[in-house]
Amino acid sequence: MSLFYPRSEEEVSNIVKSCDKHKVPIVPYGGATSIEGHTLSPHGGVCIDMSLMKNVKALHVEDMDVVVESGIGWMELNEYLEPHGLFFPLDPGPGATIGGMCATRCSGSLAVRYGTMRDNVISLKVVLPSGDVVKTASRARKSAAGYDLTRLVIGSEGTLGVITEVTLRLQKIPQHSVVAMCNFPTIKDAADVSIATMLSGIQVSRLELMDEVQVRAVNVANDKNLPELPTLMFEFIGTEAYVREQTLIVQKIISEHRGSDFVFAEDPEAKKELWKIRKEALWACFAMEPEYEAMISDVCVPLSRLAELISCSKKELDASPLVCTVIAHAGDGNFHTVILFDPNQEDQKREAERLNNFMVHTALSMEGTCTGEHGVGTGKMKYLEKELGIEALKTMKRIKNALDPNNIMNPGKLIPPHVCF
Amino acid sequence: MSLFYPRSEEEVSNIVKSCDKHKVPIVPYGGATSIEGHTLSPHGGVCIDMSLMKNVKALHVEDMDVVVESGIGWMELNEYLEPHGLFFPLDPGPGATIGGMCATRCSGSLAVRYGTMRDNVISLKVVLPSGDVVKTASRARKSAAGYDLTRLVIGSEGTLGVITEVTLRLQKIPQHSVVAMCNFPTIKDAADVSIATMLSGIQVSRLELMDEVQVRAVNVANDKNLPELPTLMFEFIGTEAYVREQTLIVQKIISEHRGSDFVFAEDPEAKKELWKIRKEALWACFAMEPEYEAMISDVCVPLSRLAELISCSKKELDASPLVCTVIAHAGDGNFHTVILFDPNQEDQKREAERLNNFMVHTALSMEGTCTGEHGVGTGKMKYLEKELGIEALKTMKRIKNALDPNNIMNPGKLIPPHVCF
Repeated sequence: MSLFYPRSEEEVSNIVKSCDKHKVPIVPYGGATSIEGHTLSPHGGVCIDMSLMKNVKALHVEDMDVVVESGIGWMELNEYLEPHGLFFPLDPGPGATIGGMCATRCSGSLAVRYGTMRDNVISLKVVLPSGDVVKTASRARKSAAGYDLTRLVIGSEGTLGVITEVTLRLQKIPQHSVVAMCNFPTIKDAADVSIATMLSGIQVSRLELMDEVQVRAVNVANDKNLPELPTLMFEFIGTEAYVREQTLIVQKIISEHRGSDFVFAEDPEAKKELWKIRKEALWACFAMEPEYEAMISDVCVPLSRLAELISCSKKELDASPLVCTVIAHAGDGNFHTVILFDPNQEDQKREAERLNNFMVHTALSMEGTCTGEHGVGTGKMKYLEKELGIEALKTMKRIKNALDPNNIMNPGKLIPPHVCF
Repeated sequence: MSLFYPRSEEEVSNIVKSCDKHKVPIVPYGGATSIEGHTLSPHGGVCIDMSLMKNVKALHVEDMDVVVESGIGWMELNEYLEPHGLFFPLDPGPGATIGGMCATRCSGSLAVRYGTMRDNVISLKVVLPSGDVVKTASRARKSAAGYDLTRLVIGSEGTLGVITEVTLRLQKIPQHSVVAMCNFPTIKDAADVSIATMLSGIQVSRLELMDEVQVRAVNVANDKNLPELPTLMFEFIGTEAYVREQTLIVQKIISEHRGSDFVFAEDPEAKKELWKIRKEALWACFAMEPEYEAMISDVCVPLSRLAELISCSKKELDASPLVCTVIAHAGDGNFHTVILFDPNQEDQKREAERLNNFMVHTALSMEGTCTGEHGVGTGKMKYLEKELGIEALKTMKRIKNALDPNNIMNPGKLIPPHVCF
């Protein structure tokens, strides 16, 4: 496998053109934080690592947008934006790059308020398999000018081209924010509060759920003493008065569902600390079983089904010999589990797969999706036909074939191998 | 031209299959409120009128979504939803259907708060040119399961298939709302206030601009007595306290830009009346020149350029012998003009085209788009290459050819005829 570190769109184009000529597979490479096998290279070939292309090309404060090279990390970008009172509101794993986030249509805890990558990209520049460079849209906030090539590339996981430049929609850093936590006797109560909060019309900016096992992991890893019960974490933003009003409304909902009083974090350091804990939940799990690996599930269902999905998954997880934690972006109906297993023990690996499989099929039976935000890669290919039907997959394959006739772009990912047209 | 009124997806599929076999062009037909020539049939063929497919198939109140057949009108749908405390937040011309709104990626005055059709559709069912039916996504709010076929079809203007079913994301009817108007000595002041309001981080739900000519038309048509000056109309939503807070913040911005005091509408009838006036602005123009036709421009630029675009357009419009009014969805940078002309006078027609052309090229020079929300149809094809470049158009053509090899779906629209690959 050859590794390239291009420094410009032109260099990317030259590499791709040459690979296309010689039919050499290409794996575009961002922060490699994805966990569904997106950056594997089952067919060998060339890896284009975008880490040297991380310039901010233009910041338009009045338009609240920024033009960046695709290799920049979202955390670096937010450091750059902070002095301007702006931020980019998607927060996947630390280390993820903007290009990778586009490729996988990522989201994270703020998606409940700001939407996913789909909603926050204005325009892309993409090197196609031919080496030609496409600009997908103008810099206007909205447009009805032809096929939505921006959205076609977002979520295409490097199978249609290499993203070199991204124009992102930014948000104002909120005047005021409050983080509040509360816990519940059962996870169903916590899920029900999530549903009731969304139905109330309140625009929370975050609504995260952790089960008691995940809270225990957080305690162990961070030397904390949080009550080891199903827990919701809220973030409310806006003017000070509006934040207070939202808090009161949600507090009332919580009290109707057997929840504890809110514990608040208001000073900036305390808030940062709390979200850091949530952000690092996965690492906290490893604190419990340092030698183990984690399988992370990622399903999403219509909100009304979330309580049911979590309840029946919990039953299965609690009955398993493996240590499993639950973390959900509950406001979106997006539900993760971290399943810890010993990679040296075949039966544990199989059990982790069985649990993951169980949750995917349960979600699909509830009109949900096999992947809320982690993408298809190689890990979820086997579920796509059940979710979307063969005609949708054939349509994807037709598009892939039209744009990449030599199948050089990240082959073996996203479209299941049995699909033909 | 043969006309079909299918009653089911199966009937649509049979018509399409048969047309594909005999290479007969198809024009899918919704409310026909589009004004860029989308429903013309330059190649004859078959028109599939969706007006008999307007059932609500499922309402999921807890998930805040609804599954409808594509022929239903957005106004009918909102009547159906109102008793449930929900609404669908896009408001194009009265008469537009949900299917047509998907096909043209429409938006309207509420897009500043809720986004465009792109952001408010969860899933589609589409009859492809082969007659096969594709479901584009699950009913989950977010998903990373493969290519975004939903967004590919939204804005494809009937050139990729016939939309038969749409799952829409709904919104809670706001607890409280206030409509407020104010006027300004110059249109630049009004545009500057729009920019400053958006930058303040306040989430207005509507922010509409009318110039003094449009206000005059409104007065004539509705027997009103509004001050004939550049005018902004705001809508604020939320809890009562939050609405008051937003109003005060914007009032302060207005006073810093030479604006008048707010005139408020708070009771439901007064608010409805006011938005009705705005909604019927086009008809108000015809009240001034009943025998004339209207050319309606539709450009959109990054917000920071809006004041400049409007100012230089106004100069051109005011100098023209034709009567021209300005209406803008100012919060989005989306700017319309209504240009009235006598269809029997060739020079007037030419002048209207010259003005439209002037505004498109000015918008494109400001990194804007030739169509903010009306779509390409036949009217905007000639500008697409300048806006997006030939590589983007070739990519669109490749996709079109892959999915519709016989070019039966709405041929002659969206992709300029000179594009080949």
